[in-house]
Amino acid sequence: MDDKKNIIVGAGLVGSLLGLTLLRKGNRTTIYEARSDMRMSAKASGRSINLALSHRGIKALEMLGIKEQVLQYGIKMKSRIIHALNGDILVQDYGTREGEYINSISRKTLNEILMNELQKIQDDAIVFDTKLESVDSHQNEFVFSSKNGNRIVEKNCRVFGTDGSASNTRDYFLNQSGHLRFNFSQTYQNYGYKELTLPASPSGDFQISSEGLHIWPRGHFMMIALPNPDGSFTCTLFAPFYGLEGFDSLRSIEEVENYFTKYFPDVFTKFDDLAEQFFENPIGNLVTVKCSPWHHNDSVLLLGDAAHAIIPFYGQGMNCGFEDVYELNRLIDEKKNWVEIFAAFTDCRKSNSDAIADLAEDNFVEMRDKVGDPLFQKKRAFEVELEKRFSNYYSKYSLVTFRPDLPYSTAMKRGRRQDEILMNFCATYATPDLDHAYSLLQEEGLFG
Amino acid sequence: MDDKKNIIVGAGLVGSLLGLTLLRKGNRTTIYEARSDMRMSAKASGRSINLALSHRGIKALEMLGIKEQVLQYGIKMKSRIIHALNGDILVQDYGTREGEYINSISRKTLNEILMNELQKIQDDAIVFDTKLESVDSHQNEFVFSSKNGNRIVEKNCRVFGTDGSASNTRDYFLNQSGHLRFNFSQTYQNYGYKELTLPASPSGDFQISSEGLHIWPRGHFMMIALPNPDGSFTCTLFAPFYGLEGFDSLRSIEEVENYFTKYFPDVFTKFDDLAEQFFENPIGNLVTVKCSPWHHNDSVLLLGDAAHAIIPFYGQGMNCGFEDVYELNRLIDEKKNWVEIFAAFTDCRKSNSDAIADLAEDNFVEMRDKVGDPLFQKKRAFEVELEKRFSNYYSKYSLVTFRPDLPYSTAMKRGRRQDEILMNFCATYATPDLDHAYSLLQEEGLFG
Repeated sequence: MDDKKNIIVGAGLVGSLLGLTLLRKGNRTTIYEARSDMRMSAKASGRSINLALSHRGIKALEMLGIKEQVLQYGIKMKSRIIHALNGDILVQDYGTREGEYINSISRKTLNEILMNELQKIQDDAIVFDTKLESVDSHQNEFVFSSKNGNRIVEKNCRVFGTDGSASNTRDYFLNQSGHLRFNFSQTYQNYGYKELTLPASPSGDFQISSEGLHIWPRGHFMMIALPNPDGSFTCTLFAPFYGLEGFDSLRSIEEVENYFTKYFPDVFTKFDDLAEQFFENPIGNLVTVKCSPWHHNDSVLLLGDAAHAIIPFYGQGMNCGFEDVYELNRLIDEKKNWVEIFAAFTDCRKSNSDAIADLAEDNFVEMRDKVGDPLFQKKRAFEVELEKRFSNYYSKYSLVTFRPDLPYSTAMKRGRRQDEILMNFCATYATPDLDHAYSLLQEEGLFG
Repeated sequence: MDDKKNIIVGAGLVGSLLGLTLLRKGNRTTIYEARSDMRMSAKASGRSINLALSHRGIKALEMLGIKEQVLQYGIKMKSRIIHALNGDILVQDYGTREGEYINSISRKTLNEILMNELQKIQDDAIVFDTKLESVDSHQNEFVFSSKNGNRIVEKNCRVFGTDGSASNTRDYFLNQSGHLRFNFSQTYQNYGYKELTLPASPSGDFQISSEGLHIWPRGHFMMIALPNPDGSFTCTLFAPFYGLEGFDSLRSIEEVENYFTKYFPDVFTKFDDLAEQFFENPIGNLVTVKCSPWHHNDSVLLLGDAAHAIIPFYGQGMNCGFEDVYELNRLIDEKKNWVEIFAAFTDCRKSNSDAIADLAEDNFVEMRDKVGDPLFQKKRAFEVELEKRFSNYYSKYSLVTFRPDLPYSTAMKRGRRQDEILMNFCATYATPDLDHAYSLLQEEGLFG
């Protein structure tokens, strides 16, 4: 359309996927990445070690022909595996249809595949160790600086900000908030998280089932675990920073060991070096970022966490970012020029990223608290039967996770209404009837 | 308590009032102000020309013994004077008790009084033409630069940020958002405003009544007017940026004149140079800023618009900022050290500034739309009778405006519940009964 150069800020998952997409379309593209090339290091980078890749993310990989290449490294998780305090285990399948599972995948592996693929097209596309230093919104000038002291000025390019929740590209908008009427919010949870590795057994096997995502719901805090290909699990403890069972109450080896003995007794003994890891690993923040507009003319566009960081409790952060790229690709094919593409992108993605942000906050409460509640469990069991009997019924989780043909906002509205109806129904009837429930849902037109 | 130096960023209304307060307490204080000394210029500075000073603001002036000195420049506004499209005028008194009026006052006059008073204590307290250039949160270093090129580094001071809605002091928090878990939002209205001067008559008299705040409610847009001591009025047109009756539809002299002829016919002919002013004066933004925490240890505290900018429709922006200073003064007297003072300040003011922010958004709808509605007018007339009969009944407006003994959050909760009860009551009964309504309100304990 024009021969402006594309600059992508950040070669994380969304930036690399976007880079591959643009390069495949024949657009000149440079990606600046603040960190070193992760392929040169055995260490995983700062953020969460593994992720749950599901249909919306897979849709984007399929578009680029790399779905199978990626999925070979994934571990299928078919269920939530819920660990009660007394050791009881409840297995809740995510879906009832063929292919309705999510995939535990290493962030590093996935990112490396994307980097390798895009460098097949343009070997020097990624410039590592080079961070966005400053933005001059009026001059439309982006200044990058490299670790070895080089200063690169990019002017009048088309800049894509995929630099995450603490995005510097966003300064383009924040520096001229009044002029652009840039709405922005960042909201921190009073909760933090800490990752802990549950090692493989000496023989290299999984110590607990690898067929699901494990949850230890404990009311106002919880732990989850996702399997890794090497037989280990990455456990993540989510807890309040302060107060009852908060991180601030865990200051000594004894306090940590007592906490795990008390709340996670079935898994505590399977760790090698729990307390050591606990004091070595940082406590991460949980932040939600919302803003708009995401674009200015055809100069700058924010995507992924830079535009809409969400908390991780629907397993949709990366999937939503990948769907951004999928939708942007569609708009590039449909629209005549970049001004239109960027405007249409904010237009179609904003309400959907707001929806998944809200769903993720709901799900935090659900995961740490409600999954242990008898009425919730009854409703969930009933819903599974409903899905099995009626192939056109999808639970809220399935609408969000396994129906990438539906926008998040539609999935949210429909899913919330379904939940309301079924919770009431299961509270009202001791032995709820499937056909009766179906007809109630049908009256509200909740299908299709 | 300690001998740290106080730095105030910004010598606007709140900064100057705070400066006076700290100096009166014998604290070493320097105020940096980006602009030139307004006393050297006849021109009013950028923001709104006049303001509605009411009881919460007056309480702070009284504390400093300058209430009378300020109020001599104020013009009493006892009522909302509502102009219907057909020329009908409805006068709604703000309150029914002695002293229940608000005061139109010039921003410049008020600011100058505060500056003069504080310079009586320390002549060199205000450093003009010197703006906050950058903040190094880790070094606790604030760098100021003056117009003539001087660079001033203030280190390990106690910094008060009173630099308004676009505060640079806030960078202290934004630069370390993750560390401080700094929640922040800025939200722009799709509405802008434009100020226009309605001149005095050739003989120097007011052309419309000076005894109230004039409103021309027109559904999705409106104009208001506040009297000035020279016989003029400052009119403010609030309208959408885009769309029906929006600013973007007013591009020619003819379009502006048609608009005013159509919507503000009773005042249109009283302007001298309406179209000229219209194209000369800028369109202002309406932004709400919320954030927390406002303090970090005893190093930095945000107050006024820097902490909680609100839209102007309750006439409480300055009053709320002045109440900040009043409350801070109280906490300085009560608490042992600055860490405690700052923490207690965020604690007691945050819920109240959130409340007035929400009330201001409600009131925008009320002023531009509801004041023209027959049921609203009936309820308001009934409420006035109720206030006259029962001296312990206060309307929501009175609770917010004339009861500085009640926190904003209490005034909001009580006022909203009263409105709900009385609107229902007036919708239900053709001739509502005062005693009956009073007993309903009494049942909910809405007094005191």
